[in-house]
Amino acid sequence: MAIVRQTLVYDGPGGPFEGVIAYEDEVQTLRPGVLVVPNVLGQKEADNQKAEALAALGYVGFACDVYGQGKRTTRQSEDAAVYMNALKADRALLRDRLAASLAALKGFDRIDPAKTAAIGFCFGGGCVLDMARSGFDVLGVVSFHGVYDKPDYQSVVPIAPKVLVCHGWDDPLNPPAATTGLAEELTEGGADWQIHAYGNTGHGFTDRDMPPGRKGFGYAEAADRRSWQAMRGFLTELFV
Amino acid sequence: MAIVRQTLVYDGPGGPFEGVIAYEDEVQTLRPGVLVVPNVLGQKEADNQKAEALAALGYVGFACDVYGQGKRTTRQSEDAAVYMNALKADRALLRDRLAASLAALKGFDRIDPAKTAAIGFCFGGGCVLDMARSGFDVLGVVSFHGVYDKPDYQSVVPIAPKVLVCHGWDDPLNPPAATTGLAEELTEGGADWQIHAYGNTGHGFTDRDMPPGRKGFGYAEAADRRSWQAMRGFLTELFV
Repeated sequence: MAIVRQTLVYDGPGGPFEGVIAYEDEVQTLRPGVLVVPNVLGQKEADNQKAEALAALGYVGFACDVYGQGKRTTRQSEDAAVYMNALKADRALLRDRLAASLAALKGFDRIDPAKTAAIGFCFGGGCVLDMARSGFDVLGVVSFHGVYDKPDYQSVVPIAPKVLVCHGWDDPLNPPAATTGLAEELTEGGADWQIHAYGNTGHGFTDRDMPPGRKGFGYAEAADRRSWQAMRGFLTELFV
Repeated sequence: MAIVRQTLVYDGPGGPFEGVIAYEDEVQTLRPGVLVVPNVLGQKEADNQKAEALAALGYVGFACDVYGQGKRTTRQSEDAAVYMNALKADRALLRDRLAASLAALKGFDRIDPAKTAAIGFCFGGGCVLDMARSGFDVLGVVSFHGVYDKPDYQSVVPIAPKVLVCHGWDDPLNPPAATTGLAEELTEGGADWQIHAYGNTGHGFTDRDMPPGRKGFGYAEAADRRSWQAMRGFLTELFV
């Protein structure tokens, strides 16, 4: 079967937004849909490849955009975090753009809108936690080397989506106290949660494009493979 | 195929010991062997069932004995922890009994002795961590709601066996500081480690026989299922 990519332009506050949706073309039944929330750099080829990998698992993957059409950075940009920082300063706006992205996924005609989840990487890992905190109608979320700081709005409790957090223990963005703090927050929120911590693993462990040599950061093959496997089991559990 | 159980009596310091080994009878090739280290009560039917479940996965499972033939307790015993406490007071003796148990497994003629691992529950979870700390020749260990206190001897570093710790976050035997302490110990020991923490889950989450109603203790279906699945993936990774 062939996996198809399709550009999806959609509206929302600060939009239009532009993402890429991927699916196996020949499947006729409605499939679960999985939102892919990009890292600090915004929507890019690496995210499209994750969407394709999800399509290969039998889902529809949607690498979404929370910055707005054309707003992207690279590691070489003067300020690679410019768009991320603007949203980190306005978590309610971020939430509303995530809602627009999820609505775009749910509106796609090959999706079973009752069966959706969200995964995210780095900043996107924080985004999917915000989706869980905000009571979004998804069955579960997976954060890969996300960020754990709470938004300035109250969570919708109990936190209904199941939560899987895949965490590099040496990640300097989330020292042990941040991780145990997230555990406490999710426990108090009544979430069904798991945190998988990987030893000797830093921030960005799934990111093959991360420049090497910075302590506590970098691609880690074992954690990349193990976290993807954990995600697969988690999605299977969600979508049965 | 039929799974066979066989009683194995073996020697060691303070022995003889008596365990139960389980395997699929009709498989003729040598298989990986997995030691099952029992909880506080000692070798019992629940452990034999774990050995059988491992046999169903294509391994040889060996529910071993570190207390000595006939030395068993039940939840109704006057002092259910009597044998455990004696060994907790002599971790070197415990280590040597674990070595005798592993040797019994490796000597079994259906085993590929180059492909072994150990799993353990509760006290047995602590035992398999001691095996990793002691430089035992196993490819990996899995602790299910184990105990994390270090032995009074030095670890063999780097800790060579891969380590998977399946942990109930609400386990009062291991508050967050014990768990982050284990992460630190394993990191310093250079181990390839993972800790999977399960929210709203207490000690004994795999133990269907644990009496209900004690805060922080008890069977938890989701964590039982997820940790077994994590173990399956882990063993697959070890034995390829």
